[in-house]
Amino acid sequence: MKNVVLTLVIAESALETIPESLWTHPAITKWAKAHRKHPQHVLLDRSYHHASMKKLEQNEKRGRPDIVHFALLEALGSPLNREGLLTIYVHTLNNYVIWANPEARLPRNYSRFVSLIEQLFEFRQVPPNATGRPLLTLKKQTLTQLIKEIKPSYVLALSTIGKPQTLEASISKIAKKNKPAVLVGGFPKGHFSEATLKLADEVARIDFQMLETWTVVSRAIYEFERASSLPKKRIDTTEGGNL
Amino acid sequence: MKNVVLTLVIAESALETIPESLWTHPAITKWAKAHRKHPQHVLLDRSYHHASMKKLEQNEKRGRPDIVHFALLEALGSPLNREGLLTIYVHTLNNYVIWANPEARLPRNYSRFVSLIEQLFEFRQVPPNATGRPLLTLKKQTLTQLIKEIKPSYVLALSTIGKPQTLEASISKIAKKNKPAVLVGGFPKGHFSEATLKLADEVARIDFQMLETWTVVSRAIYEFERASSLPKKRIDTTEGGNL
Repeated sequence: MKNVVLTLVIAESALETIPESLWTHPAITKWAKAHRKHPQHVLLDRSYHHASMKKLEQNEKRGRPDIVHFALLEALGSPLNREGLLTIYVHTLNNYVIWANPEARLPRNYSRFVSLIEQLFEFRQVPPNATGRPLLTLKKQTLTQLIKEIKPSYVLALSTIGKPQTLEASISKIAKKNKPAVLVGGFPKGHFSEATLKLADEVARIDFQMLETWTVVSRAIYEFERASSLPKKRIDTTEGGNL
Repeated sequence: MKNVVLTLVIAESALETIPESLWTHPAITKWAKAHRKHPQHVLLDRSYHHASMKKLEQNEKRGRPDIVHFALLEALGSPLNREGLLTIYVHTLNNYVIWANPEARLPRNYSRFVSLIEQLFEFRQVPPNATGRPLLTLKKQTLTQLIKEIKPSYVLALSTIGKPQTLEASISKIAKKNKPAVLVGGFPKGHFSEATLKLADEVARIDFQMLETWTVVSRAIYEFERASSLPKKRIDTTEGGNL
C-alpha cells in the first residue's frame, strides 16, 4: 500500500504583526515600550491588544496567535507527521505563508512561541541564521498562489457552511487521492472568504457548530491515519524509525 | 440508544505551586519578587524555573501547566462535552483533584490560564466567590480516592507500557460499559505509578511512542464520539441544544 502524504493548510490564520494603523495607538505604544520592541515586531494578540483592535477591519478574525500555536503542536506531534506523511503550511489572513519543518520541535510555552514567530516575521526564517533546514520559513504569498505551487490533486475545505458530511467520510475519500490537501480555518470566528472557497474541490461541514482549529486539525490528521491503517501498524512496531 | 457519559481523568498531572523546598532558591525568590507573589502562589513552570528544578524528586514529571491547559481546552471544546456526555477531572502528581465545569470557557491565553490556576490553588475554586457553580474546583485527593468516589464500572488507562491495542478498539470497548473512565497521563515524560496502574481494569498502548497528552485526550474523546455515532447525529442537526 502506497503512503499518501497529506498536505494540511491552516488557512486565513489570525496571525500577524501589529498593523501600521495601530502603531500610534496609545495602548500599543505603551505596550511596545514596556516590551522594548517596535510594534512592527510585535504579534497582534487580542489578549493584550483587545481595546486597540476595535476599528480594525475583520477584527473578529484577527489577533489569535494561540490558535496557530496549538494547531501546529497538534500537527507536528502527530504520528502521521512522525512518519513523514504530513506537510504543514500556515496561511495568514494577510497573505503570508509559513512552512513548518516536520522535524521542528516548537516551544510548548506560549511566550516563547510568540517570540519565535516575531523573529520569523522579522527574518523570514527561524533560527535567523540556520545553516541546515530552518524550523519555520515565511514568505509573502496568497492562498491561491500556495495551492498553485503545491498542486494538490484534491482540496477539501472544512467549514460549517459546507455540505454535511462526517469527518470520517470526508477524510477517507481524500485519503484515496494522489496528493490531497485539507484546509482548516485558523481564525476564531467567521468563515472562509469566497477566494478560499473557490480553491476547494469540496467543502464539508463536519459538525453543526464551529469547532476549534486545534480540534479539527487533531481529528482530521487522526482520520487520515486511520484511513491509512497507521494506528494498527504503529502499535505493532516496537522500534523507532519509519515503517 | 442510551447516552453513556465518559469520565476523563488527566492523571498524575505536572501541575503544582512551587514546592516549599524551592521557596528560598535564589532564582525562585527573584522570580516571585518580580511577579509580586509569594512562591506558594506561583505555578511551577519548567519554562521559567528549569534551573531550580534540578534537585526536585521526579522532576521530569513536573512543572508543565501547559499540558493541562491544552488538554482541558481539547476536552471542554469537544462535541462530546457540548452534549453533556463528558465529565472531566485533573488529578495532579501531588494529589490534588480539579473538577472542570462542563460549561467552563477557559482562557485561551496561557498567562491568563496560569493566573486562574494560581487562584484555584489559593481559593480552592474559581472564581473565588462564585455564587453559582464555579468554573473549576480543587480539593486534596488521591487518584485512588477519586476513583472510589466516581465508582466507574470500567477503567481504561492509556500508556506505552500497556498491551498493544488501537485506540479505536480500546474506546469502542469501554463505550459499551455503563460508566467508563479513561486515564490519560498529564506529564511530559515517564509512566504512570504502580498505584495508578492498579486502578485500571485495562492498560492499553495505542502507539509505540509516547504521544502528547492533548493529542491523546483529543483522539480518545473523538473515538468515544464515534462509538456513540455522535458525529453523524451532529451533522444532521441544524440547531443548537442537546440531541
